[in-house]
Amino acid sequence: MLTLADIRDADFRIKDYIIHTPLIPSSTLSNATGCQIYLKPETLQKGGSFKIRGAMNRIFLHLNKIPDTPVVAASAGNHAQGVAIAAHIAGVQAIIVMPDWASLSKQEATRGYGAEVCIFGQTIEESVSRALEISRDGGLFIHPFDDEEVMAGQGTLALELFSDLSDIDVIIVPVGGGGLISGIAVAAKTIRPSCRIIGVQSDQCPCAKAASLQGEPVCIKAQRTIADGIRVTKIGELTFPYIRDLVDEIVTVSDDEVALSMLWLLEHKKIVSEGAGAASVAAILFKKCFLPHNSRVVPIISGGNVDSHQLSRILRRGLAIQGRVLRISVIIDDLPGYLARLLSIIGDSGGNILHIHHNAPGDPDIPVHEVRVDIELETRGPDHISEIKRNVTSGGFMLL
Amino acid sequence: MLTLADIRDADFRIKDYIIHTPLIPSSTLSNATGCQIYLKPETLQKGGSFKIRGAMNRIFLHLNKIPDTPVVAASAGNHAQGVAIAAHIAGVQAIIVMPDWASLSKQEATRGYGAEVCIFGQTIEESVSRALEISRDGGLFIHPFDDEEVMAGQGTLALELFSDLSDIDVIIVPVGGGGLISGIAVAAKTIRPSCRIIGVQSDQCPCAKAASLQGEPVCIKAQRTIADGIRVTKIGELTFPYIRDLVDEIVTVSDDEVALSMLWLLEHKKIVSEGAGAASVAAILFKKCFLPHNSRVVPIISGGNVDSHQLSRILRRGLAIQGRVLRISVIIDDLPGYLARLLSIIGDSGGNILHIHHNAPGDPDIPVHEVRVDIELETRGPDHISEIKRNVTSGGFMLL
Repeated sequence: MLTLADIRDADFRIKDYIIHTPLIPSSTLSNATGCQIYLKPETLQKGGSFKIRGAMNRIFLHLNKIPDTPVVAASAGNHAQGVAIAAHIAGVQAIIVMPDWASLSKQEATRGYGAEVCIFGQTIEESVSRALEISRDGGLFIHPFDDEEVMAGQGTLALELFSDLSDIDVIIVPVGGGGLISGIAVAAKTIRPSCRIIGVQSDQCPCAKAASLQGEPVCIKAQRTIADGIRVTKIGELTFPYIRDLVDEIVTVSDDEVALSMLWLLEHKKIVSEGAGAASVAAILFKKCFLPHNSRVVPIISGGNVDSHQLSRILRRGLAIQGRVLRISVIIDDLPGYLARLLSIIGDSGGNILHIHHNAPGDPDIPVHEVRVDIELETRGPDHISEIKRNVTSGGFMLL
Repeated sequence: MLTLADIRDADFRIKDYIIHTPLIPSSTLSNATGCQIYLKPETLQKGGSFKIRGAMNRIFLHLNKIPDTPVVAASAGNHAQGVAIAAHIAGVQAIIVMPDWASLSKQEATRGYGAEVCIFGQTIEESVSRALEISRDGGLFIHPFDDEEVMAGQGTLALELFSDLSDIDVIIVPVGGGGLISGIAVAAKTIRPSCRIIGVQSDQCPCAKAASLQGEPVCIKAQRTIADGIRVTKIGELTFPYIRDLVDEIVTVSDDEVALSMLWLLEHKKIVSEGAGAASVAAILFKKCFLPHNSRVVPIISGGNVDSHQLSRILRRGLAIQGRVLRISVIIDDLPGYLARLLSIIGDSGGNILHIHHNAPGDPDIPVHEVRVDIELETRGPDHISEIKRNVTSGGFMLL
């Protein structure tokens, strides 16, 4: 049975080795909700997520007993990096089993912390089996969530919260396997019983919600989601009782809501978050949970390890939403010099070309001797778009 | 004459209204340099940069004397937002003059804080003249750097540093007009005289370096730079003496170095920084200054207000450098079905298409009955690139 005392012990054990991440007030979110919102960016934690907390606690607990045991874990994501850093700090060997689709950047990051990376399996389950096999030969297996020592470590995050801000009314926590929220719930409900704990899941994979409805952990069918860090098909056997007894509400958010929240964090708070990390902010931005007026609310931004391609997509989408990208098709005379004239007008208007495609003549839908040019360009916003279109039209060109 | 006492007074005045930004240790930078490096991300400050500190101090100092005076400033960047937020918090009107090229997003952000935005001038100098005119009719002009009240406010950043970490040996500060570094230098050299203060400028606009050489502020010719937040053509008349007397060294960084540092902060520390903000990290990553072994070093990441188009470019460039984007040209038979076969091979190899251009047949450089297809795709890294190329070739296609 996990208690506040275990979490305090964990804190004592690990606090000198991890980062006490800050609480950052957000006036925009506060004004929008009538609450006092403080962000907890675990994106700034070592390894870019909260995962080091649990791994560090479990390693230190066993380091005293069997100092030379290597630690073993299976993960394609944050847990891999968390365990690798924790082992590095503790001075023990780490073997991380990763499925064969694990991104090279995650493999490199994990190796970068001194871990031995073993590529095995086409699914994470196959990687876990391999890790368990390895640990049977004398290794300390570190489960990503279903382990009380890991849960105790994750719970230290709540101790930091209450040491920075004593009267927190609501904590909003992304939920995958439930390790983070169960640790936080045990600490928070003991320190301040009135504090509400709200779990957030992707609506593509709501395993904790399903378990709450069924009264026990059940395996659900998961869809692909941008919040892949909390894509777990079955809530933990050990974490579930804490969620059932201590968590006040579990809400879900959509991929679109998560993507817009990632963009919001990027543009308004200069914080890079991964999908799972932004889920807590999505729950606030899209009003998924009741927040009492003037209450103090802390969304946990659990991690920031987003793939750069993903981040690039989020940004481009944001630019399109804000009218910062314009796509136009223009009909021009099929004669030398006309394209240059069109581009001069666009350039003089301050539009910056991203892509251009000059179609071949012969389209039956437009007059003969004319061709269509498709252009994608950067703009300063909707007013600038109007200005560019006006200038192109008054320059004698026809916009489609 | 600015003293530590002025800065302590400023701190007392503003500290309840600003964010005490955290110090984040970086083991990667520490290991690379043999020092202990702690990042100070003012990107997390209200308004996304340190600018609120100075503006808030000046406003509060005068609020007591003339409570109903509007504040006036001219800026196309961080200073605009800093003044707007500070005025909003103080409950006074703000008029911000912006040049006509100021981005819509900056205009909107400034208006969002309740300021009146006045678009005037084609250069920032013309905007400043207009702001001074407005303030002559009864307004409090807030200079972006050349004002002791502003400098004192910026200096509060150093007080935070020393309250978090008493024995700092080196502070690295981006330098535009010199407001931030002069405030920091006065505080740091009084609290801990042995602490070295290093200024960083863009090599496209090294106005402080030029002034140091000439012995007085001189106007230099500035080039375009990614670090536009520190693109100031003449160091302040008031800030220069502090820089001359208290700053140990001024170094410069190139745009490429700044861009790579922005990428490093984004990917490794999950911090969105603007070019000026990343200049301090660039000075470390590219070994521009001597850092004594094991010394405690704090680079100030002065702001995070980067345009999304800019950020998108930085990210795409990073992806290309890391081999996460592949551009190939493939020769295929000019017959139905061949393009589909090529794309199936690429898809089965896990390559994700970004752009594709199927050229018209007839290129004299390639055999008749064949055409060239140009493809840009996402990959997992260099090994994945080799794999995709191998699969395409062994599928019977010729890579150019």
